[in-house]
Amino acid sequence: MADTRSLERLIEALRCLPGVGLKSAQRMAFHLLQHDPHGAQRLAGALSEAVGKVRHCSRCHTFTEDEVCSTCRDPRRDRGLLCVVETPADQAAMERTGAYKGLYFVLMGKLSALDGVGPREIGLDKLFERIAEEDPEVPLREVILATNFTAEGETTAHVIAQALKDHGLQVTRLARGVPVGSELEYVDLGTIAHALVDRR
Amino acid sequence: MADTRSLERLIEALRCLPGVGLKSAQRMAFHLLQHDPHGAQRLAGALSEAVGKVRHCSRCHTFTEDEVCSTCRDPRRDRGLLCVVETPADQAAMERTGAYKGLYFVLMGKLSALDGVGPREIGLDKLFERIAEEDPEVPLREVILATNFTAEGETTAHVIAQALKDHGLQVTRLARGVPVGSELEYVDLGTIAHALVDRR
Repeated sequence: MADTRSLERLIEALRCLPGVGLKSAQRMAFHLLQHDPHGAQRLAGALSEAVGKVRHCSRCHTFTEDEVCSTCRDPRRDRGLLCVVETPADQAAMERTGAYKGLYFVLMGKLSALDGVGPREIGLDKLFERIAEEDPEVPLREVILATNFTAEGETTAHVIAQALKDHGLQVTRLARGVPVGSELEYVDLGTIAHALVDRR
Repeated sequence: MADTRSLERLIEALRCLPGVGLKSAQRMAFHLLQHDPHGAQRLAGALSEAVGKVRHCSRCHTFTEDEVCSTCRDPRRDRGLLCVVETPADQAAMERTGAYKGLYFVLMGKLSALDGVGPREIGLDKLFERIAEEDPEVPLREVILATNFTAEGETTAHVIAQALKDHGLQVTRLARGVPVGSELEYVDLGTIAHALVDRR
């Protein structure tokens, strides 16, 4: 209807959000217009600002507003370590542990033949270029593959490990094992089997 | 971090959407920036436009861009019938049936003591004013209460019905009964009991 065209456009536009279908988009649009027009205005501004400002770090590929992100610029980081993760959310999880002080490379995805995501889409060339760059002061010693432990994440880790075989680098993978705080009885068999093989 | 401030603002702003917590907001922000910046821009525009243009119909309270919505203006509508619904989504569901040709009043909510939503918040005054307005050509004959069949919806319907008792109007409620296409065995007992009492 002509008199609700901007409402319909808003519902349609909300469907670009992942996991939001027609019903959720309607509910969101009605909620914003009825109860939170200020939130809607703030969201509109934040969207424009983020799309305009946020880009990829030229070193590690994560989101940043600068040419090189603050992690890559940080002089206290150990430049001999490079941790490869799938997403900025994974990077944030690594950071929250406080147990890692090296640098990152964020793939922004994972290899997935089903979704047509190949090595180029996740910037593997850039990763290999980055690794090939020699820093005369602090040479890269180790690449830690911290992709997810899903089928696609494992494939991605495997492909990267294969490609790095002849670089003379130590290539490691996060340890698989029993999660902290869990009872063996309720842990799946594959995980226990891995924990047994990797026992130390 | 200073170099991701606009990203953090976007994640924070996305949380104004109903049902979106921190994790979903992060996922949405990363998805938009990585895969759909055009969708994000479109959404920003649609939000601003809708907040600027959409308001409430002065007659029926639904969302519209005009002073009076197209349904209220439609001369083919039966002005003797008024259907009271909770939301524009409910109104749209009624419209899709094609079985109703009267006018609407959209409460934009329901009475809910727990959430502090009283008669004023859902515009009951406006509804009663609207009902009291006499149209000399087509007097209002019937008010159909089509609020939801939840505790709050039933309360809302009851309050409206009580207030309209002395207006000399026919006040009806949508029929409760067994849904079309369902098997008695799987229908809840309350519904069957109602269908039995209201048998015809």
